[in-house]
Amino acid sequence: MADGTPPYAPAATDLADARRRDEADPLREFRDRFAIGPDPIAYLDGNSLGRPPRATIARLHEVLDAEWGGRLILSWEERWVDLPVQVGDLLAEIVLRSASGQTVIADSTTVNLYKALHAACGLRPDRTEIVVDDGNFPTDRYLMDSIAAERGLTVRWLSPDPESGVTASDLASVLGPETAVVLLSHVDYRSGYVADLFGVTAAVHEAGGVVVWDLSHSAGLVPMSLDAAQVDFAVGCTYKYLNAGPGAPAFLYVAAQHLSRVEQPITGWFGAADVFAMAPRYEPAPGIRRMLSGTPSVLGIVAVQEGVKLIAEAGLDRIRAKAVDLTEYTIAMVDKKLVPLGAGLASPRAAAERGGHVTIRCPDAAAVTARLVAAGVVPDFRNPDLIRLGLSPLTTSYAEVWTAIDIFADILAST
Amino acid sequence: MADGTPPYAPAATDLADARRRDEADPLREFRDRFAIGPDPIAYLDGNSLGRPPRATIARLHEVLDAEWGGRLILSWEERWVDLPVQVGDLLAEIVLRSASGQTVIADSTTVNLYKALHAACGLRPDRTEIVVDDGNFPTDRYLMDSIAAERGLTVRWLSPDPESGVTASDLASVLGPETAVVLLSHVDYRSGYVADLFGVTAAVHEAGGVVVWDLSHSAGLVPMSLDAAQVDFAVGCTYKYLNAGPGAPAFLYVAAQHLSRVEQPITGWFGAADVFAMAPRYEPAPGIRRMLSGTPSVLGIVAVQEGVKLIAEAGLDRIRAKAVDLTEYTIAMVDKKLVPLGAGLASPRAAAERGGHVTIRCPDAAAVTARLVAAGVVPDFRNPDLIRLGLSPLTTSYAEVWTAIDIFADILAST
Repeated sequence: MADGTPPYAPAATDLADARRRDEADPLREFRDRFAIGPDPIAYLDGNSLGRPPRATIARLHEVLDAEWGGRLILSWEERWVDLPVQVGDLLAEIVLRSASGQTVIADSTTVNLYKALHAACGLRPDRTEIVVDDGNFPTDRYLMDSIAAERGLTVRWLSPDPESGVTASDLASVLGPETAVVLLSHVDYRSGYVADLFGVTAAVHEAGGVVVWDLSHSAGLVPMSLDAAQVDFAVGCTYKYLNAGPGAPAFLYVAAQHLSRVEQPITGWFGAADVFAMAPRYEPAPGIRRMLSGTPSVLGIVAVQEGVKLIAEAGLDRIRAKAVDLTEYTIAMVDKKLVPLGAGLASPRAAAERGGHVTIRCPDAAAVTARLVAAGVVPDFRNPDLIRLGLSPLTTSYAEVWTAIDIFADILAST
Repeated sequence: MADGTPPYAPAATDLADARRRDEADPLREFRDRFAIGPDPIAYLDGNSLGRPPRATIARLHEVLDAEWGGRLILSWEERWVDLPVQVGDLLAEIVLRSASGQTVIADSTTVNLYKALHAACGLRPDRTEIVVDDGNFPTDRYLMDSIAAERGLTVRWLSPDPESGVTASDLASVLGPETAVVLLSHVDYRSGYVADLFGVTAAVHEAGGVVVWDLSHSAGLVPMSLDAAQVDFAVGCTYKYLNAGPGAPAFLYVAAQHLSRVEQPITGWFGAADVFAMAPRYEPAPGIRRMLSGTPSVLGIVAVQEGVKLIAEAGLDRIRAKAVDLTEYTIAMVDKKLVPLGAGLASPRAAAERGGHVTIRCPDAAAVTARLVAAGVVPDFRNPDLIRLGLSPLTTSYAEVWTAIDIFADILAST
């Protein structure tokens, strides 16, 4: 840490120091809002699956007993039918800092991305190219291939500078008069680099294209305003930093300016103008509801609602501040204890370029991960040589990080 | 009931008689396996949303506390990642009476139908026509229009004889050398007519086409064997007779003979050959897993599992026998008390042609439904003049039916 030490770099010393940091943490009370058992001793995979909020568990019990059991089908009209839009609006306000009427909660990230990509391509019917980052999450790349085949388009693969997040200048070589749609991740699922949401969106628009952002690794962690950045489409996952549980439904944002024109192909009854009219032909709902398809998961959406309420209460700026400090602390620990043992940092050192996880490149990463898990430390292995330490600001303690890196160092030393 | 009375038609007399029937019901113990509160006094909409099984509530609590909260991300490897196929296999055995490896649980019925229809069309790439019943559920019709537009196909609309379920002879006029895919519902969502699964499937095959069955209103109610009927594709809903809760994930069946060749366009990581390989290009999983897309809902699949286990315990043949008797009883009540007041039966009189609901055509059906609900009787209104009485064999009692029709008659008499 001697060179280029940021001004707020912590001196990671011992467990007592980590505990003092936890006591001084302005978000410390939030950890108690989650159901946290004795194992694992260090959970550093909240960026894959966040912990269960206690309020979510209580609310799901209520939905099971009072809403499903108590009111049965009547709950659809009384409270469920508008949940995809109501909770979408809440998420838009708190997480996307954007206006209502542009966001729904339903389906998986994959299905929403599929719908968003078709809708986006439909806005540029005369253009022939779609652009995706070759380091993007597999689903994103797989879908672009599939959409290209379906629509007779060409995929242009973008290879961004591995030493930074995706910037407008990375895009310069692939954007052109044939660019229909660009799909990028806001935070890289491997390195944690944050892309330049404003600059890239502006560059795509400059070329006459439409942008689709995958916010899976930034939603609930990195403050943003999709409206201010003039983003066209966005999707994201809710079971990471939004803590909505395994396989909870995803969100889908479409900018208001596009809503009257967008079409998506999975035309089910929940996207129809009148859900219960049982009309002879499909007429899309006038607003964001047209992006819905089948019956949405009530339990899933309710869990998203509770997760977002916790984010609202903690405040996205405080969450971001803790993410910065936690990742700084983790990097200091990595530099001090793991780099001398042959591991390397694969995440950005500049806090502004970094999301919520810190990735370590490490020999025998799969075997090391298995030994970490056996020792009660849960990180995330990414093929072939990466170990991600996911730091979830509402639940991850400095003591957990200290313990994890201490055990990690022991494992590397004995390998 | 004077003319054409079936041999087992009950004499619906009074509430004491209904209670005697409940006491003699071989499935009576199963009603206690569900969480049933004092309201509504008669719930006749289990064909839209089944009641919550107590085991499901208990199991969901366990998943929330022990699996999500306790093991966190480790639960994916330890028990969740194969759930879509494991529970698909269970459902295939119990509900579809078909072999394993052909069924998954994931996504909504709409999304699964979308994937199944694309996959089916892909098996007949040189043919130009797809066939759908014009009385089919809206989503089914909407999707056929959407798929036809995407693939450049023509929709042939089938208008089956309203006085019977869909039969092979109904299809004769629309099947031909251009028929690629036929989509039909096994049990009609309005009338309750049961289509001829064997005969229609054979007729479609005879014409060289591929059949997709929507089993939403028959799964868990009508015994069938998709394997024996040589069905190509099927989808169905789990929140009706399978009691898996609001918006629970659907099932998707693909006959083994097609699995090596089918392709579906929503290519997400859960359908890839190696989910966690993060491969550069999409390679579909070798078996039924290729029909998956994004991360499936764990809570939803677990609820399907519990729902199917209850079906297994009760036995589909006993369930069907009770459905026949309950619908007979209901029709006798309708004939005796509602027909004289201007209502008419819109469901088949022959038990073999009938699913689990009895539909009544009735003037001012919307207003009558509202009055029924206000009086504690919950049926299902279908635009414009139909009221469905959904009879769910594991939970609906004869006393509920008697009470519902008694109140229904009072309302009609005072209209």
